[in-house]
Amino acid sequence: MNVAIAGYSTTKFTLGQPSIENLLVSATKELFQNTKNLSQKDIDAVLVSTNNNKKYLAPILSELTGITPKIAQSIENMCNSGANSIVSGYSYIASEMADIVLVVGAEQAENSAQVLDWDVSRGEFTHPIFWGTMFTKAHKRKFGTTEEELAYVSALNHKNAQDNPAAYNTKAYTIEDIMNSKRLTEDLKLLDCSRSCSGSSAVLLVSENLAKKYTDSPVFISGIGQKTTSASFTKNDLTRLDSTIDAANQAYSMARIKADQVDVAEVHDAFSICELMILEDLGLVSKGNAGKLVLELYKTNDKKINPRGGLIGSGHPLGATGIAQIAEIASQLQGMSAKRQVKNAKIGLVQNMSAAATSSTVLVMRN
Amino acid sequence: MNVAIAGYSTTKFTLGQPSIENLLVSATKELFQNTKNLSQKDIDAVLVSTNNNKKYLAPILSELTGITPKIAQSIENMCNSGANSIVSGYSYIASEMADIVLVVGAEQAENSAQVLDWDVSRGEFTHPIFWGTMFTKAHKRKFGTTEEELAYVSALNHKNAQDNPAAYNTKAYTIEDIMNSKRLTEDLKLLDCSRSCSGSSAVLLVSENLAKKYTDSPVFISGIGQKTTSASFTKNDLTRLDSTIDAANQAYSMARIKADQVDVAEVHDAFSICELMILEDLGLVSKGNAGKLVLELYKTNDKKINPRGGLIGSGHPLGATGIAQIAEIASQLQGMSAKRQVKNAKIGLVQNMSAAATSSTVLVMRN
Repeated sequence: MNVAIAGYSTTKFTLGQPSIENLLVSATKELFQNTKNLSQKDIDAVLVSTNNNKKYLAPILSELTGITPKIAQSIENMCNSGANSIVSGYSYIASEMADIVLVVGAEQAENSAQVLDWDVSRGEFTHPIFWGTMFTKAHKRKFGTTEEELAYVSALNHKNAQDNPAAYNTKAYTIEDIMNSKRLTEDLKLLDCSRSCSGSSAVLLVSENLAKKYTDSPVFISGIGQKTTSASFTKNDLTRLDSTIDAANQAYSMARIKADQVDVAEVHDAFSICELMILEDLGLVSKGNAGKLVLELYKTNDKKINPRGGLIGSGHPLGATGIAQIAEIASQLQGMSAKRQVKNAKIGLVQNMSAAATSSTVLVMRN
Repeated sequence: MNVAIAGYSTTKFTLGQPSIENLLVSATKELFQNTKNLSQKDIDAVLVSTNNNKKYLAPILSELTGITPKIAQSIENMCNSGANSIVSGYSYIASEMADIVLVVGAEQAENSAQVLDWDVSRGEFTHPIFWGTMFTKAHKRKFGTTEEELAYVSALNHKNAQDNPAAYNTKAYTIEDIMNSKRLTEDLKLLDCSRSCSGSSAVLLVSENLAKKYTDSPVFISGIGQKTTSASFTKNDLTRLDSTIDAANQAYSMARIKADQVDVAEVHDAFSICELMILEDLGLVSKGNAGKLVLELYKTNDKKINPRGGLIGSGHPLGATGIAQIAEIASQLQGMSAKRQVKNAKIGLVQNMSAAATSSTVLVMRN
């Protein structure tokens, strides 16, 4: 059974702290407004993607919105919760246990997954900034990546975010602004980092035979790859994200495409170095050359990578991020992304990951 | 693709507070010891069922036990997390996205789902004891259920627990002990309540074609039902659990059986009244007559219902409960339950639910 995306929504990301119930309901309400013929009674499963500590949010969201699904549960895998939830929803439909699955991701700016103080297995690296620094240093050493190239990652994402009404921040930044932003570690500056924010996003998954009831232009998930490894900074080679490489190979194989067929991609730029490593590990550019690619994208105003501004540009509400990436690629493949639109986008890709790529999910989507 | 249970484990439940990582690893290690030919590299997905607030526990468990799965995530739906996780694992296999899924449930005695202070949608009923009382009062009024009948639910479960080495408490209680235990509300006494405890349990799900590699006697999940409604105490009729009725009908239909074919069942006796309502709503006895059935089971030493002692007898480590129920029924269908064994058990049932049956899962299993 093929699985289609028949609706989606993303609320405005902010630095405020609205309640998690409010965030979940807002995205759900907007999805209903965006989707024709959708009734609460159609929905077989409600999956909530979040790192919020409240329990039982899927039944609460269901009750607040008048949905009485069979299946209702929260799914958590830190920053990768969103794509994990979509894959779980896909499996319910592909196994014919459900026809219609609503996946809603939400996070508050202040959330319990920001500092990894629970991570007993990985020593003292209790803040993501430590592995962000290690990766940056390794890439600079091996490939001669420059601070300016890294700054262009941030500049490109912030530029793209200016055309994304959901972004938490639509300010323009020059390369100088970024290079001169507060230095947090030897290798990372403030504007190299994505910012935790509040936000929510929802996606409606339906079995292929029902897709046309809810949308005139369904988008299909044609490739899925997932992999969990140890944290990448415990590996010998700090310049590659093994889980992303593995997930990408699975997804390309399932979708029967090669990397160079990807027209538009949302990737998980938690730090500027991540975007460079991911573009290389997805095979979108050869190893060590992502810095040059980003510079070219910036100068030619090409929105192929992170058209909504990625995590650095639009903000990073952890549980919502993967869902918002998927919503953006669905919108791109429908030609509905307004000023952010990549022309003739036929094949899209989403790469979502958690802490130092301990796990990665790669989805290939087509219209 | 049929889905089999090829291995399981349940650790000793306690009133201590071991770390959540310790609980998860203990059940996983025991499952590996119990399962022939199982290697870490075989496992495609690791699903953690818990209400613990720590993030990212599935990748941490994987790293601590040398597993590098594709899929790793936590699943939470309060007291129903365990069965929800099993159904999610089932869907990964049934959709051919995975061949082998390890599901591990764990909870600490002190956990964040005990008091429902987050439940903004349901008024002031912030402790389960309130709905336990409302249900008890309604059942007494409508069916003339007596305090003594309720006491026999507790007596039966505590008696069965004496033969369960994993139970937190194997003390014998007389009807007098139970009737005279501390009165908590007008209708509930201390020994009418299940007790939150620490514990963990694991189940290995495999596709049918691989089952014989890992076990000589695979058990199959032949029926699945799930339903999420509003909390049952917001309904007009407080003597029935609508979500359980709906889930049971789905599960019986999928398994092509009738209720009277069930040989052995684990049901979610959060309070003694729950067991009576569930036995009736599953159709194992007519409405209003579960009290008489329990009395008969007690007097004839019949272990058909809650052979491991249910939640009241063995304890209630929330995220582990559903998994431990399923492990017990698998063991029963394999004839491996020692003193707890129900003779010639061929068809088993598990009913797991969350807060006042806001959601219910019913599984039918066969050997």
